[in-house]
Amino acid sequence: MTQTAAIIGGGVIGGGWAARFLLNGWNVRVFDPDPEAPRKVGEVLANARAALPALSDVPLPREGVLSFCGTITEAVQGADYIQESVSERLDLKHRVFAQIQQVAPGTPIGSSTSGFKPSELQEGAANPGTIFVAHPFNPVYLLPLAEVVPSAKSDPALIERAKETLRAIGMFPLHIRKEIDAHIADRFLEAVWREALWLVKDGVATTEEIDEAIRMGFGLRWGQMGLFETYRIAGGEAGMKHFMAQFGPCLTWPWTKLMDVPEFNDELVDLIAGQSDAQSGKYSIRELERIRDGNLIGFLRVLKDRDWGAGRVLKAHDAMLRQALPDPTPDTAAPLELAHLRVLPGWIDYNGHMTESRYLFAASETCDAFLRLIGADLDYVAGGHSYYTAESHILHLGEAKLGDALTGTVQVLSSDEKRLHVFIRIARGDQTVATVEQMLLHVDMAAGKTCPAAPAVLARLRPIAAAHAALPRPDTAGRHVGQGKA
Amino acid sequence: MTQTAAIIGGGVIGGGWAARFLLNGWNVRVFDPDPEAPRKVGEVLANARAALPALSDVPLPREGVLSFCGTITEAVQGADYIQESVSERLDLKHRVFAQIQQVAPGTPIGSSTSGFKPSELQEGAANPGTIFVAHPFNPVYLLPLAEVVPSAKSDPALIERAKETLRAIGMFPLHIRKEIDAHIADRFLEAVWREALWLVKDGVATTEEIDEAIRMGFGLRWGQMGLFETYRIAGGEAGMKHFMAQFGPCLTWPWTKLMDVPEFNDELVDLIAGQSDAQSGKYSIRELERIRDGNLIGFLRVLKDRDWGAGRVLKAHDAMLRQALPDPTPDTAAPLELAHLRVLPGWIDYNGHMTESRYLFAASETCDAFLRLIGADLDYVAGGHSYYTAESHILHLGEAKLGDALTGTVQVLSSDEKRLHVFIRIARGDQTVATVEQMLLHVDMAAGKTCPAAPAVLARLRPIAAAHAALPRPDTAGRHVGQGKA
Repeated sequence: MTQTAAIIGGGVIGGGWAARFLLNGWNVRVFDPDPEAPRKVGEVLANARAALPALSDVPLPREGVLSFCGTITEAVQGADYIQESVSERLDLKHRVFAQIQQVAPGTPIGSSTSGFKPSELQEGAANPGTIFVAHPFNPVYLLPLAEVVPSAKSDPALIERAKETLRAIGMFPLHIRKEIDAHIADRFLEAVWREALWLVKDGVATTEEIDEAIRMGFGLRWGQMGLFETYRIAGGEAGMKHFMAQFGPCLTWPWTKLMDVPEFNDELVDLIAGQSDAQSGKYSIRELERIRDGNLIGFLRVLKDRDWGAGRVLKAHDAMLRQALPDPTPDTAAPLELAHLRVLPGWIDYNGHMTESRYLFAASETCDAFLRLIGADLDYVAGGHSYYTAESHILHLGEAKLGDALTGTVQVLSSDEKRLHVFIRIARGDQTVATVEQMLLHVDMAAGKTCPAAPAVLARLRPIAAAHAALPRPDTAGRHVGQGKA
Repeated sequence: MTQTAAIIGGGVIGGGWAARFLLNGWNVRVFDPDPEAPRKVGEVLANARAALPALSDVPLPREGVLSFCGTITEAVQGADYIQESVSERLDLKHRVFAQIQQVAPGTPIGSSTSGFKPSELQEGAANPGTIFVAHPFNPVYLLPLAEVVPSAKSDPALIERAKETLRAIGMFPLHIRKEIDAHIADRFLEAVWREALWLVKDGVATTEEIDEAIRMGFGLRWGQMGLFETYRIAGGEAGMKHFMAQFGPCLTWPWTKLMDVPEFNDELVDLIAGQSDAQSGKYSIRELERIRDGNLIGFLRVLKDRDWGAGRVLKAHDAMLRQALPDPTPDTAAPLELAHLRVLPGWIDYNGHMTESRYLFAASETCDAFLRLIGADLDYVAGGHSYYTAESHILHLGEAKLGDALTGTVQVLSSDEKRLHVFIRIARGDQTVATVEQMLLHVDMAAGKTCPAAPAVLARLRPIAAAHAALPRPDTAGRHVGQGKA
């Protein structure tokens, strides 16, 4: 049965939560007195729809139903999970919790607070045991981290169920066992933020130079290993103790201004806002969001391919989604739509179009998705068998341009134990920009010879091939280069 | 002429510098009194050889010659650039600089110091103007950042030349205009490190939980945008000032322990080393390095595809390498050998072979070289005309593997004013690994229609086409997918 999440507070964070729940098949009820809330949530949801599905290799569930409610009571009544993302004011949060608990005293209430401890949130509550911190990171629909912080009054079973809920929407609940102000991650952000303000204020570096100092170096390390594992490597074979012995004494060196807080005045705000305009003002916030999301999708997919860090969260989520699928074969009565790609800046050639090898790349991605669908996935390859492409014919019918959303569909033309003949269509909306006809051969990789595919693979392939046999054969299948008009 | 870098100090950092220079075609002389230095540098170099070429889409120059020297004098004499990476002791660095400047008083000396200011490094030097900070980040052979910090005594022209040298080896020199202890990036690392030690000491989180708090969330953001651009987005349409207004007041909240330094004792070292073992001890340091490098290659290639951040540094480096490539020379009595490519690590798929779209990429590079040869080059495209590929047929006849040297040859099958029908052979030595038959159409790009090519282009094309008409037609020209045996 479809579950329902109540989202109290519909800003960027609340909107991100709403998007995660909706795209994972939950119904979502939002309460926010701001008349702009539907527009704001809608914008976050549009970003999320363009981004989150790109992380999954399994179809997401059918999107849930989004509704906006006039009262907290209406939003939370009968909800399975409640997420509070109102402004960072403790009195306001207390009032919200009191209203919630009048009608939903037993429902889990996660708070997006970045600073308050759960025991502070629970003060004066009718049922403190259901209130806990579930602190996400923007963009909530892409970054897996949610810091889950209970207090001594929290119900351990409810916390475990809440963590299951977060996993079900693709997140990584990090259970923090001891409550402190600002949990963990924001303490680091705060430390760096203070130091960065000093550097700008003292004219040591601009906002852009500081960003380069992060993203050209340690930011890349931290996105995949964090602090301690990175330093473990720095210690080399001598180990972590060696690293500590080298760097420990530096702790007492006067390296940072952190003992000190810069005066937060208009002059500092203007300085930083001005530098930020010079650095990033050429992009609108919407453009920056899309650039950021594309980068994050890229990083996350790299980690997924490498089965590491945040990529493992994605794989675990796929496994959950796959289990929930009724049948591994979707609608086989039509060509299978299996890939969704966006044309990236690096794919553009000197003509301003997608460079020709990227059409084949798009087809390969589509064909790989088909192979995964029939079970010829990376585990299968690791077992020593694979489908190799023997031959391809590409017909260019249109021009893909920067930012175009492309879909890849597969039609099986014929197949037997060893051969797989497919026709792949790369389209932008209704317009086909290229077709790629391919013959794949199933091979024993060690022997370097063709051989029959595994029975499990053939068992998935055959019903699709049988269904596709009824489809009209594409006009251009079997074309050779230069044959009459296309 | 091949340039020479002298590397003083052959640890992980010195080895990383040595690898960057070597793989970019410099000769490298290393001085390190440690008898283990050749082994240590060799291990870093092995990692670098497996990793750095994966970032480039242009063949790197022929690797330089590595030698180990018994004295500093021997290492630096006649060198074009000197990089110092000895232990972080100022007296030691001063002695090293004094020895260097006895024989190489005018050569740029970059110091890898993470803490000392250039003015401190320059104290007592014979020629202080040549000594500056060039602070890299581990792994030096993959991360582009080098903080370049001059002092008031530095020679500005020498600093600019040093920055050019760093760019030539693929780095991003970040010029820091005001010297401070620990430059920029390490101040952030130090701030986070102190805070992290508190969290572990107080039992709030383990080293593993802290790493997850970073890499599941803000670490992914920082790898591609840094701090300020990320917060600019958080401010939304209301902008950076809005963000500052929201978060500024938090600066005075008691969120961090940073005013305070944890006591660095054996108990803390044991606690952290033990947790790190539990977290990462299942991997050796070598394994962790390979995992890290693979992740970083993935991130960096994503950014390169997206023409963003560190990826732009890679693209600029490719452009520098491409300019240095020699021009091929044609002989029209045979198919024209027009492209020479080396199979890069980034071109390898999960089967361990060159990924299929790269065969078409190799053919495109070959065909582009042919178009340049007949004058349909970038200037021609800028004038509004170009050849577009209408159709391609690829036949896979062999498997290209990592490091293979491939050649691309073009045979013109037929041509007229508007059409160019070519047969491209991608070979490794005598063995053809793929053939690509293509039909290209000459187009007026603004009108989006075919049109005759410029007379100058046709004048170059015709004699080649005439000569090639005498060549045997390839057996597989005109094949369609699935047609009998290849």
